Amino acid sequence: MKLFRRLISLDEALKAVLAYAKPAETEIEEIGFGDALNRVLAEDVYSPADSPPFDRAAMDGYAIRAEDSFGASPNNPVLLRLIKSQSEKGKESRVGVEIGDGECFSIQTGMALPNGSNAVVMLEYTKERGSELEIFKPVTPGKNVSFKGEDVKKGEVVLKEGKLLRAHDVGMLASLFKRSVKVYKRAKFGIISTGDELLNPEDAEPYEGENRIADVNSYVLAGLTEPIASSYRIGIVRDNYDRIKAAISESLAVDSDSNCHCDGLLISGGSSVGKRDFIADAVEDSGKLVFHGVAIRPGEPTGFGIVNNKPVFILPGYPVAAISAFELLVRPFLFAMHGVKEERKKIFAVARKKIPSAVGRTDFVRVKLFYKENEYFVEPIRVSGSGILSSMTKSDGFVVIEENKEGVEAGEKVEVDVWG
Amino acid sequence: MKLFRRLISLDEALKAVLAYAKPAETEIEEIGFGDALNRVLAEDVYSPADSPPFDRAAMDGYAIRAEDSFGASPNNPVLLRLIKSQSEKGKESRVGVEIGDGECFSIQTGMALPNGSNAVVMLEYTKERGSELEIFKPVTPGKNVSFKGEDVKKGEVVLKEGKLLRAHDVGMLASLFKRSVKVYKRAKFGIISTGDELLNPEDAEPYEGENRIADVNSYVLAGLTEPIASSYRIGIVRDNYDRIKAAISESLAVDSDSNCHCDGLLISGGSSVGKRDFIADAVEDSGKLVFHGVAIRPGEPTGFGIVNNKPVFILPGYPVAAISAFELLVRPFLFAMHGVKEERKKIFAVARKKIPSAVGRTDFVRVKLFYKENEYFVEPIRVSGSGILSSMTKSDGFVVIEENKEGVEAGEKVEVDVWG
Repeated sequence: MKLFRRLISLDEALKAVLAYAKPAETEIEEIGFGDALNRVLAEDVYSPADSPPFDRAAMDGYAIRAEDSFGASPNNPVLLRLIKSQSEKGKESRVGVEIGDGECFSIQTGMALPNGSNAVVMLEYTKERGSELEIFKPVTPGKNVSFKGEDVKKGEVVLKEGKLLRAHDVGMLASLFKRSVKVYKRAKFGIISTGDELLNPEDAEPYEGENRIADVNSYVLAGLTEPIASSYRIGIVRDNYDRIKAAISESLAVDSDSNCHCDGLLISGGSSVGKRDFIADAVEDSGKLVFHGVAIRPGEPTGFGIVNNKPVFILPGYPVAAISAFELLVRPFLFAMHGVKEERKKIFAVARKKIPSAVGRTDFVRVKLFYKENEYFVEPIRVSGSGILSSMTKSDGFVVIEENKEGVEAGEKVEVDVWG
Repeated sequence: MKLFRRLISLDEALKAVLAYAKPAETEIEEIGFGDALNRVLAEDVYSPADSPPFDRAAMDGYAIRAEDSFGASPNNPVLLRLIKSQSEKGKESRVGVEIGDGECFSIQTGMALPNGSNAVVMLEYTKERGSELEIFKPVTPGKNVSFKGEDVKKGEVVLKEGKLLRAHDVGMLASLFKRSVKVYKRAKFGIISTGDELLNPEDAEPYEGENRIADVNSYVLAGLTEPIASSYRIGIVRDNYDRIKAAISESLAVDSDSNCHCDGLLISGGSSVGKRDFIADAVEDSGKLVFHGVAIRPGEPTGFGIVNNKPVFILPGYPVAAISAFELLVRPFLFAMHGVKEERKKIFAVARKKIPSAVGRTDFVRVKLFYKENEYFVEPIRVSGSGILSSMTKSDGFVVIEENKEGVEAGEKVEVDVWG
């Protein structure tokens, strides 16, 4: 029976795993901008031109010289001469349209401002009378105009390397006609559940009998991995040193073309101090075991190693402990490896009850959020073991209590990481 | 030139669209639990049994009668007799193991507690000496034990209809051996961009020349739709009443087997008060125009109609205005239609600067978040038009300023909807 090599703090563990997560070494691929949603940008994107490319109307109405509208009111409208466009394509060209004193030109949002004009008076404040226009409200110069380069200047970086691309970022790429874009390749993480007692819930008959234990972790870990990396569910491997070692070697083989070729592994189960703990041994004998045992709760029997230069996370068998270890160590690793520069936004909430925690370990506490008068309040979900999956499904997110803190007092403010 | 039929408030518009979003009418499908991530549950899921199914060890160690450990200390350990399992399958059966006074049994996390025992003493506080065990720390009854039904009781609802399924919820389904699960079918929304000036950024040559305008909206709207419904980019349709009407009729045809058969449409562009506004006419003549014109900014030229009993959203041509209308009206509609019961969690932040807004309209303000000492602060992104896509890419999220509010004062608290 073997204890952990050494129980290290979460900070030490995080430092150790991040040392192996180098985005510069992550492969980069070039993809169509239309496929770039939720991918991480691997280049700075520059604007090839000013945007807008010309001064343009920001409202439907009439282009005028602002000075001509001064003094206009509903009872005392200003009267301007309507100029007709030389061509029907006024919006694509300013050529041929010139506004002089006392003149105006009908214009729609987005159209180039005619030469000589410096403002747009909104349709609502006008009335056409034959070849003349009544204006009921004055505008200042520049009113309802988007100026050339006001959005983005030519050569400006519009999207920075490391940005996780959202819908509007993809829109920005489209607006620049940037057909292809460099992004970090999504690493493929193999996911293995170990345990003699585990049944595959997809094969096994719907519930019958008391003592059946399903493989939960491979589904949960795949779901947690997917937003940032690809997951490949390898499935259940029995609690046997040779089988686990063979599974590691097959999935992390160098130069393998096989379907199960992976860039890293998440192996859960059996990584406790119990008798059946073959994973740490198998990792150590296949490459290097960086650490095994982290002062987090739940999730203490968490480990990390490198095999064939690829990361291998050893995660606890209990689902909640596996999720805790994933959130505290694997997610930061995946983000760093894929070059994500931004942090997840958290919610601040006031603890309604004391949240107990011991000094010397980091606690991962599932919590429920309550909303009252512009403020969030939070309560821990009552739990007594890391097997308690309902502590996850009933929760809105989690709070991390640092190892040097002896719990959280009622009334104290905490940071809540909300399920996405 | 035609003005909006009537400019209605966001509340009225929201009420009108939600009246057409009935989850009960949304189709339900049964899928494998492994495919249920990010889907919306259309049934209550009950637990077929107690979980855990039996009292079990929550830690590795030794099952004992707690009373036997009272008084144990490092200097004065308690000595207990080690009982061996009759079978090697101790963890699957309690039969054959019975703990009496002064006895203990080696146990791993998850194993059933032997009859007669009521607590587990952790491995760390013990030492085996031949057929005896030294215990260095007392435990109370129930310590390190997960009791039968403590997580979930038989017949209890573990996942409620309307839940958006996260990784841990899929894990819960796996743990119940629930092979298939009822979820709301993802509606398929066709996405059309209208505009004579638009170029397809996938076909057009990379940037050249000043005056080219890309179809941005179909990509942005598809990206915004995807997390909850399927999107089908129909592409660019020219600003022509007949073409728009034909596109609506083709994509919303009843009993169509064609690839472009849709359950709803998002049509953007041209829906302003300008001359080229054919969409509202085409919707009105194809079915029913429920409203056109909403007092939101940006996004005023937003409309909604029903064609062949299917929803059609008319969205502004300007990308930021289209996003504003999507967030304020389309997203709530999609959530309601797909039966999602939960609200998105927001972040509260203190305004660092005044955020101006006019009474009588709802403002959609892009903001940047700043973090300082357990508190978020927020500043509006300086903008001057709804064409300013960089106001989105530079922002962390948005703030909605209700129509009866005249802006937000510096120091006031606001709710921020953060980009996911």
